Amino acid sequence: MKKPHILVTNDDGYTAPGILKLVAIMQELGDVTVVAPEEPMSGAGHAITVRNPLRLKKRSEENGLEVWSCRGTPVDCVKLGEQIVLRKKPDLLVSGINHGSNAAVNIVYSGTMGAVLESTISGIPSIGFSLCDYRHDADFSKVDKYIRKICMEVLEKGLPERTCLNVNIPAVNGADIKGIKVCSQANARWVEEYDERKDPANRDYYWLTGKFELLDERKETDEAALRDNYVSVVPVHYDLTAHHAMEHLHKFDLDV
Amino acid sequence: MKKPHILVTNDDGYTAPGILKLVAIMQELGDVTVVAPEEPMSGAGHAITVRNPLRLKKRSEENGLEVWSCRGTPVDCVKLGEQIVLRKKPDLLVSGINHGSNAAVNIVYSGTMGAVLESTISGIPSIGFSLCDYRHDADFSKVDKYIRKICMEVLEKGLPERTCLNVNIPAVNGADIKGIKVCSQANARWVEEYDERKDPANRDYYWLTGKFELLDERKETDEAALRDNYVSVVPVHYDLTAHHAMEHLHKFDLDV
Repeated sequence: MKKPHILVTNDDGYTAPGILKLVAIMQELGDVTVVAPEEPMSGAGHAITVRNPLRLKKRSEENGLEVWSCRGTPVDCVKLGEQIVLRKKPDLLVSGINHGSNAAVNIVYSGTMGAVLESTISGIPSIGFSLCDYRHDADFSKVDKYIRKICMEVLEKGLPERTCLNVNIPAVNGADIKGIKVCSQANARWVEEYDERKDPANRDYYWLTGKFELLDERKETDEAALRDNYVSVVPVHYDLTAHHAMEHLHKFDLDV
Repeated sequence: MKKPHILVTNDDGYTAPGILKLVAIMQELGDVTVVAPEEPMSGAGHAITVRNPLRLKKRSEENGLEVWSCRGTPVDCVKLGEQIVLRKKPDLLVSGINHGSNAAVNIVYSGTMGAVLESTISGIPSIGFSLCDYRHDADFSKVDKYIRKICMEVLEKGLPERTCLNVNIPAVNGADIKGIKVCSQANARWVEEYDERKDPANRDYYWLTGKFELLDERKETDEAALRDNYVSVVPVHYDLTAHHAMEHLHKFDLDV
């Protein structure tokens, strides 16, 4: 098999420990190019830059590894990576390793997974990796073999059309990761509590805080797998149609 | 029935013609509060503001209608609208009327629909409205009765749990809208072509452009409905699990 070309991005910025780890693992598997945000972009979701021009900056080039930064969002990085930097489709896109969980409802806010979905729309096999520890100095020492295995399987067997993977790795704190489980996205939400403050001129401002609330007792979800110290793998698509709701809608009187 | 309280937002900013039209229609149905971005935020997707504090500004209060602007994203507007402005859940959230289509794959980039999904996560019946004409002076004169009808049905019959509606209205250019169709999200993508330019210092920069490419021949999609001059109504959820891909993944060797 020809050596695959792997595009790497993230939402924590091109210097984050998580992406450096991911690049190191990918270099064992193929030729690697990095196009990642200049600044941390957590919470960027699927945002794109439409009202401003974008710039790319080559940060380094060593032993065939090119690292580019971009002022835009993770989704912009994927588009520019494919269209301008590589000028071809890579064989694989990986995003992460995110500092913090993208399991359950976190996927919709995630810039890491925004990049993965964008790349999927473009027809590239794509995987997002997150470690369930949001700290800058999170312990990435146990993730290698799981990430390598999942990438090798995807490179060998492919993914179904318009489908990507959302992979979350438990922060085991010294315990052992038990294995890998294929599962579904758990139902959950963030219960918001804004921190309300006054600036020196006595004007109000608000900091987003919040508490994660799991609303799902099923055993086969990503949250359940992570709580049992398994790596969770959720197949993800971008067709948001709620087919189960069609029946209810057909009861609506929509004659105008 | 008690008069419903309706929260209105959008991604084009609180002064856009589309939101002014939507507010006027909602005032026939209930009490209305507006919390919308200060600036146009097209392409914001599901982005949230996590690294900066947020501010709210009351722009007007007239005959019970309060209009607030926020520096953040459409999703921030929904969170602040519920938590700070209303300090309760509204009976309905509507977002739009977006200047431009949010049918098919456009939904994933859409700030209009980001707001709607956020409100759905919070348990509020929610609907996004878009007119398939991106111009500032788009003709909103034919939309009233369709928007009113859909909102009245939702207020009366509710929506299934964790489900919202993505409503797109064709730009009929003088022809008649034929009616309302419940349908699925069409498969499509944007084929990117960056406009590559040089600044006065001879440095490269890139403007995002692109061409919409429909990849779906099914008759029951939003794109098919819109092309036949019907209003499209797609039930939408935020469980991105690709259940059809499970079988393929179970062929993977994930033993590590």
